[in-house]
Amino acid sequence: MRLATVNIDGLPHAVVETSRGFVDLPFSSVRDLLEAPSWRTIVERHLLDDVLVPVDSATYLPVVLAPHKVICCGHNYRDHIIEMGRELPSFPTLFTKYADSLAGPYAELSFNSESKEIDWEAELAVIVGAEVKNCTPEQALSAIAGYTISNDISMRDWQRRTLQWFQGKAFDASTPLGPVLVTPDECDPKAGLAISCQVNGETVQSGNTSTLVFDAAALISYISRFTVLRPGDVILTGTPGGVGMARTPPRFLADGDVLVTTIGGIGELRNHISIPN
Amino acid sequence: MRLATVNIDGLPHAVVETSRGFVDLPFSSVRDLLEAPSWRTIVERHLLDDVLVPVDSATYLPVVLAPHKVICCGHNYRDHIIEMGRELPSFPTLFTKYADSLAGPYAELSFNSESKEIDWEAELAVIVGAEVKNCTPEQALSAIAGYTISNDISMRDWQRRTLQWFQGKAFDASTPLGPVLVTPDECDPKAGLAISCQVNGETVQSGNTSTLVFDAAALISYISRFTVLRPGDVILTGTPGGVGMARTPPRFLADGDVLVTTIGGIGELRNHISIPN
Repeated sequence: MRLATVNIDGLPHAVVETSRGFVDLPFSSVRDLLEAPSWRTIVERHLLDDVLVPVDSATYLPVVLAPHKVICCGHNYRDHIIEMGRELPSFPTLFTKYADSLAGPYAELSFNSESKEIDWEAELAVIVGAEVKNCTPEQALSAIAGYTISNDISMRDWQRRTLQWFQGKAFDASTPLGPVLVTPDECDPKAGLAISCQVNGETVQSGNTSTLVFDAAALISYISRFTVLRPGDVILTGTPGGVGMARTPPRFLADGDVLVTTIGGIGELRNHISIPN
Repeated sequence: MRLATVNIDGLPHAVVETSRGFVDLPFSSVRDLLEAPSWRTIVERHLLDDVLVPVDSATYLPVVLAPHKVICCGHNYRDHIIEMGRELPSFPTLFTKYADSLAGPYAELSFNSESKEIDWEAELAVIVGAEVKNCTPEQALSAIAGYTISNDISMRDWQRRTLQWFQGKAFDASTPLGPVLVTPDECDPKAGLAISCQVNGETVQSGNTSTLVFDAAALISYISRFTVLRPGDVILTGTPGGVGMARTPPRFLADGDVLVTTIGGIGELRNHISIPN
């Protein structure tokens, strides 16, 4: 199944996609839905209904609203690590964003003038569907609600001001997430999903989720050894090669750019970039 | 005024300390109280009441429950930076914890066997009292609800597994916070508050908040340039010299240790350490 959080008449709603359109669910966001232990059954029951809601791109919100935790992994695409001449890591490199960092999948991303080096990072995002603490990778796998797309937009100048990346990663409304959560029965990143990023139609990143060093279940299991994860929490799994900072010369997002982030089987994010002069 | 969050008959309550004892407030935690724009007036009105509630050390909860953001600053005590031969930083080094990371001021801190290098970091904590975004240091100063004590307990082995410290800083229930929030009219860290940490009665850290490179207002102003801060959010301001990792040989917390963290004019945290063999 494919779930989304959309704005209907000014209020957020969880919806499920069908071949006929979107069916409304009695929850104000996908996170609220996932907090119901029997959420799969609830969605299946509503799929029998015929109450369709109109959904256009302007109505999409971040697929999860107000997650408690948004945890990101860096250095996680095997082919990119090897091409950079680095060793494969023994442990995942983890940092954080906030619910405030998130933006809609088709939102205009409007930045203030604080950063001069706004960069892209196409990423597979995993949405947690059950509470887990100290879980094995097998338990983690069954706690995954589904997968979606994100772009871990990074302010490189802020990210490199100190040793800790957080301040360059947590700008408000910088990180599009969506458009839909696709459940694991319809989507298997381990088997391989093409992931790419385009700026103004030019492909700048291209990779495959089968080359993740730490897959979704491994990341959730590892994180759960130090902190609890709950329904709606978001894990960003890292980005393949091709970020703007690593180009010669470096290239960053500019006012008016159109950023498209695509993962096969899930869909795409499409975000216009607005940066004041 | 001095505010606390305590457990009364199994439910959390915000209370205010008076010379006669603690007066109950109609909020379930200091964060809920701070979300009321007129919180100072509300507390003053209740101070006229004579309804005292019994408070002993077992009833203290983290002074703020469920903050949206817990942001920490590293490398921030001038004397310690200079004694280590480092340059004073141009920007604050920031990383994060979670509401789940917090523990009561007198709680037993029970760790699992994941870390073998559990270290102390006595810190002044600042509690935000109003929503701020892109604020000046002057605006930040008037948005401070007050000050309290924390110990940024750090799992050094996890902290150093990768370049990003987060995974060694965000173990659940690792970070005592409290016992009271003291409002700025009664507490001025810039003028200088003695801060110290004792393990089993031995003083291992001793510093003064007047030597902070980035003071509370500077940190809030800086953070607000990339993300909004709200009432109840917590900023940990860094630790003076004397952490266990920097000793020769290194020293870490052991099962049965008693950790006391003291800031003049606020009070002390007293935490028994429990670590399985």
